Amino acid sequence: MTNVPQTMKAAIMKGIREITIETLPIPEIASDEVLIKVKAVGICGSDLHYYSNGRIGKYVVEKPMILGHECSGDIAAVGSDVKRFKVGDRVAVEPGVTCGHCEACKEGRYNLCPDVQFLATPPIDGAFVQYIKMRQDFVFSIPETLSYEEAALIEPFSVGIHAASRTKLQPGSTIAIMGMGPVGLMAVVAAKAYGASTIIVTDLEKLRLDAAKEMGATHVINIREKDPAEEIKKITNGKGVDVAWETAGNPKALQSALESVKRGGKLAIVGLPAQNEIPLNVPFIADNEVDIYGVFRYANTYPKGINFLSSGIADTTKLVTDKYSLEDTQEAMERALNHKDECLKVVVYPND
Amino acid sequence: MTNVPQTMKAAIMKGIREITIETLPIPEIASDEVLIKVKAVGICGSDLHYYSNGRIGKYVVEKPMILGHECSGDIAAVGSDVKRFKVGDRVAVEPGVTCGHCEACKEGRYNLCPDVQFLATPPIDGAFVQYIKMRQDFVFSIPETLSYEEAALIEPFSVGIHAASRTKLQPGSTIAIMGMGPVGLMAVVAAKAYGASTIIVTDLEKLRLDAAKEMGATHVINIREKDPAEEIKKITNGKGVDVAWETAGNPKALQSALESVKRGGKLAIVGLPAQNEIPLNVPFIADNEVDIYGVFRYANTYPKGINFLSSGIADTTKLVTDKYSLEDTQEAMERALNHKDECLKVVVYPND
Amino acid sequence: MTNVPQTMKAAIMKGIREITIETLPIPEIASDEVLIKVKAVGICGSDLHYYSNGRIGKYVVEKPMILGHECSGDIAAVGSDVKRFKVGDRVAVEPGVTCGHCEACKEGRYNLCPDVQFLATPPIDGAFVQYIKMRQDFVFSIPETLSYEEAALIEPFSVGIHAASRTKLQPGSTIAIMGMGPVGLMAVVAAKAYGASTIIVTDLEKLRLDAAKEMGATHVINIREKDPAEEIKKITNGKGVDVAWETAGNPKALQSALESVKRGGKLAIVGLPAQNEIPLNVPFIADNEVDIYGVFRYANTYPKGINFLSSGIADTTKLVTDKYSLEDTQEAMERALNHKDECLKVVVYPND
Amino acid sequence: MTNVPQTMKAAIMKGIREITIETLPIPEIASDEVLIKVKAVGICGSDLHYYSNGRIGKYVVEKPMILGHECSGDIAAVGSDVKRFKVGDRVAVEPGVTCGHCEACKEGRYNLCPDVQFLATPPIDGAFVQYIKMRQDFVFSIPETLSYEEAALIEPFSVGIHAASRTKLQPGSTIAIMGMGPVGLMAVVAAKAYGASTIIVTDLEKLRLDAAKEMGATHVINIREKDPAEEIKKITNGKGVDVAWETAGNPKALQSALESVKRGGKLAIVGLPAQNEIPLNVPFIADNEVDIYGVFRYANTYPKGINFLSSGIADTTKLVTDKYSLEDTQEAMERALNHKDECLKVVVYPND
Repeated sequence: MTNVPQTMKAAIMKGIREITIETLPIPEIASDEVLIKVKAVGICGSDLHYYSNGRIGKYVVEKPMILGHECSGDIAAVGSDVKRFKVGDRVAVEPGVTCGHCEACKEGRYNLCPDVQFLATPPIDGAFVQYIKMRQDFVFSIPETLSYEEAALIEPFSVGIHAASRTKLQPGSTIAIMGMGPVGLMAVVAAKAYGASTIIVTDLEKLRLDAAKEMGATHVINIREKDPAEEIKKITNGKGVDVAWETAGNPKALQSALESVKRGGKLAIVGLPAQNEIPLNVPFIADNEVDIYGVFRYANTYPKGINFLSSGIADTTKLVTDKYSLEDTQEAMERALNHKDECLKVVVYPND
Repeated sequence: MTNVPQTMKAAIMKGIREITIETLPIPEIASDEVLIKVKAVGICGSDLHYYSNGRIGKYVVEKPMILGHECSGDIAAVGSDVKRFKVGDRVAVEPGVTCGHCEACKEGRYNLCPDVQFLATPPIDGAFVQYIKMRQDFVFSIPETLSYEEAALIEPFSVGIHAASRTKLQPGSTIAIMGMGPVGLMAVVAAKAYGASTIIVTDLEKLRLDAAKEMGATHVINIREKDPAEEIKKITNGKGVDVAWETAGNPKALQSALESVKRGGKLAIVGLPAQNEIPLNVPFIADNEVDIYGVFRYANTYPKGINFLSSGIADTTKLVTDKYSLEDTQEAMERALNHKDECLKVVVYPND
Repeated sequence: MTNVPQTMKAAIMKGIREITIETLPIPEIASDEVLIKVKAVGICGSDLHYYSNGRIGKYVVEKPMILGHECSGDIAAVGSDVKRFKVGDRVAVEPGVTCGHCEACKEGRYNLCPDVQFLATPPIDGAFVQYIKMRQDFVFSIPETLSYEEAALIEPFSVGIHAASRTKLQPGSTIAIMGMGPVGLMAVVAAKAYGASTIIVTDLEKLRLDAAKEMGATHVINIREKDPAEEIKKITNGKGVDVAWETAGNPKALQSALESVKRGGKLAIVGLPAQNEIPLNVPFIADNEVDIYGVFRYANTYPKGINFLSSGIADTTKLVTDKYSLEDTQEAMERALNHKDECLKVVVYPND
Repeated sequence: MTNVPQTMKAAIMKGIREITIETLPIPEIASDEVLIKVKAVGICGSDLHYYSNGRIGKYVVEKPMILGHECSGDIAAVGSDVKRFKVGDRVAVEPGVTCGHCEACKEGRYNLCPDVQFLATPPIDGAFVQYIKMRQDFVFSIPETLSYEEAALIEPFSVGIHAASRTKLQPGSTIAIMGMGPVGLMAVVAAKAYGASTIIVTDLEKLRLDAAKEMGATHVINIREKDPAEEIKKITNGKGVDVAWETAGNPKALQSALESVKRGGKLAIVGLPAQNEIPLNVPFIADNEVDIYGVFRYANTYPKGINFLSSGIADTTKLVTDKYSLEDTQEAMERALNHKDECLKVVVYPND
């Protein structure tokens, strides 16, 4: 275990909108774990939510906690049973460690494991630190051609890949993706990787719609200017899209997404709305035999995601608009929180 | 074409709640059609809807029209190209004739054919007549052991079979079925045929809940007495059901059905609610990766339905509570409309 | 850990057709394991193979080893983290412990885990002992109504359930099952549980064909008397069966099974033939778009299997033709090996 | 019906390796048919087979017959019910007209329709003529950007698309495709359209392997130089490919294809071998839970195929190595038959 110091810096959330830098011992690893020197951590909407509200639904930050779960780094040490990695390997981290023993895990839907330990979901600490430990099977080697930022982006990318898998997205399909936050933008890349030939996206920020075009969107709709469902019908010659994904958690966007799918089409609900009850056009669902799929995180997506990004399908580094050191994590969070018209993905570099 | 008269009686809806008996010529059949002497026609909720309101959503009764689409009978004549049938064969009738050429038809989802001609859906006339013609591929032989009433019930049964197929119902599953009208009751039989081991049903009429038990329900919940979602959680040890079907078109029942499914479970929307916008718990759908499937009529269900009922899986003749001759069609409709606490399936016999 | 002795008896295979009874220490359990007092162990064809040949393909018995993997019993002790069980619980044992971390495990196909530890597959010891330990997630509670013998039969039953799942067996299907050894007989029960309405079976022993009828076969073909493919065509009016399973590992049976499926039908290869290269009618596979599925053990079948057998779908206790104590394990093996015309399932009771 | 002459030239096969040019009346079209002025017809392996042997399996050329089924052209006249087309539209032709009424058609597997009328499959005449008629639902508009040659190639392309659909080919997959005849070459394009990231192909002709690279193969194996299964194992780090397709009808290639798939992988049998019985490693299929899918023609592929080729996924015009007028059809056939080392796709232009 060469070159690993005995202590490290960590950005700890002490209260709402209050992050301080403290010194912690390096985590000790078990025989099937690896220690990772964290190189890049993307800030996610859920991080901002915990930071500004102290909770997301039933998950409450009850004590000082470390945020951040979209991360990548270098292997710094390996447990005694670990054979997949050696010190120095560059890796992406899948942030939810599941039990492997429950019904959901055994059926291959481990994202539904009730005992998952997910980075930066209370009470589990996250990745705004210099070193984290992780069970080896949730760590994945990345090729030299993939940057640490891209490796961190595999996390939001995974959500799009999982949505594609849930909605059985076929090559040549038409798809509408609602909301061009980082998850939506990476979902565009996923739709492209699955061969969608018409990718229509919606948002209200020009910055995001422009980024969507860079990622592979074939049509962009600024919802400040046009009605999305109407516009989508036009683009698809009145037929509607094969598949629609709502990624913004916005009730109106969800209603538009539903309205936009063709007879026999599919809708994925990816974004988590703040309110519980959202009015949906139920006769439309029945009459048109729409399939609706809830999407919760992802499973078995990392190897695919690394494969897709390594193939150069899109230059996702363009999504990184802001870069901060670990010391400036609070500033990074404030920036991401307050400048959604200027920021796409804000990244923290804990070891630079 | 022996024994076929030149004219026949028909029960024609002339206006809202107004049916008269008139004499019409016997339909002429094309080379790929058969003429059927109608023996039994079940009254469906949609018949009652047209009868009492003159419309269902976009479908409007604009001129005198014949209702009735759940029917069976004897082959009275066959077109020149027909080889599957001979005069005298006992048959069940699948009431929607599809084009066979559109995208939906070619992909095996012919229930979504935009050019379907469906009996008793305006402007197509239905089965409250003595003879109907039908394209031969939508007619199915029934064994001697199946009564004409049972053969007519294959139509609502098909909806349940299609729901089972859409929700990939597995043997040994737990299922909740909301609403024990005729479609719900036949859905119980479908769930049993697909091997569901726990079949929980809800309704507010004792008559219907008792009938559900006869059909194979293992647990009945009277929603006047108990909260269905709560009760279903109890029965499933807090887990929720694998699959739920809403068959009543009732917003509350739909919300209960959604709330009742387990994490990773499936929901079918079978019933058509009167109102368009129904509030649904969207975070629940996403968090739990629920699949929701719209169900519109059915496809490829008749051979299965005939097979299941012939096997004696349930004594569905018990569902026939009221019998009328063609002359009394209006009385039959009024009975079915006004005595839902006393009637299950009301059947008209056009040739008795 | 009350009432557990410090040593136990074990039936150890010392060489080909040589089993001796020895005394061993009781296994120590880890925090996530349970200790099981073994009540019933069925003898499987693979046990007989190791016993008489010392190997199956690449798996070689290289040192003294304990056979037996179809087992059930009572919980005798639980590890410190075990919450699912308490001492005295009656349980069935799924005999293959998988890693939970590899690609196959994470995708829900844990039967393909390369690191599985399977009872009585060299070099892992099996269940012909008084006590075994097992990781808790491969142990399943059984209801009072299920006997230990039935609980042990869940293992071969699982193979049939997995075949049904692989071939997407639908209710109302026609199926042909080749070979009525214990796996074939339990496969008949699986086909029945999945709602197959025509279950055609083949074998050359009257004893087994009679047992198949008891289990639910609707048609039996003695291949000494009739050509199975021809006979199956007759039974299905020339169409062929929807699905066929070969369970005997017999080349001719496999060829017949293939020839028996309908256009667009499905074939599962369940039995392991002794020879590698078997001539198959490849143009038939292509012309008729047959699906062929290899079946290797099973995954996620135990809860279903327990559910099915508990529902009284078939009286599988009738399959137990011979009963032995642990001391007589060698005699039991010889009996099963030499009297296939008289034995169906031979069971050893280690604690009686 | 402007500009359509009253007679046309046709290349008629009078006997084995004997084609003469004759004058025939222009076909009359029914109300749901279109008349197509044929612009390009690709020569297929099956055409060569009928031409040189007079039969393929059970299909026998018993009277003078017109070959050719990979074709495209311009709409020359439309039936009275045809709304999808107008005279002058450029179109690709799907050459098998199905009944639309049988079980296979209704389930969406219309390629298994027993009553299909397939161009150039005896006794149905094919496309080596100046005008053909076709039911409108088997005719598809092509964009200006697609050449007639490419439109004709949609036919062999469809086989690859169908194989991808049958084997559920996922983006990022590794695939091995055996045999680089025109079907194999277009299958490479299909694999690319479905997002396969590693496409390994085998053949023994350098010309074909070079063409495969042009179409998108990432690795080529000349089976004269290397053992394909061994080489594929190397390329996949010992794991084997996710999916393999055999397109050559070659027994050895099929055995290699099977041997090349990973545990849990999938194999499609696309090529029709001349001999019936081919020895396959059955224990390998069972042990590794391989799925094997027969592939017979295709269904629902034309819109996809046109979409893919229009997107510029590969420059398939490079596959057209030889061009002939209708008068020289026999010469074209001889060329294709005798110079497999020089020809990829030979095309006949009936109206040039």
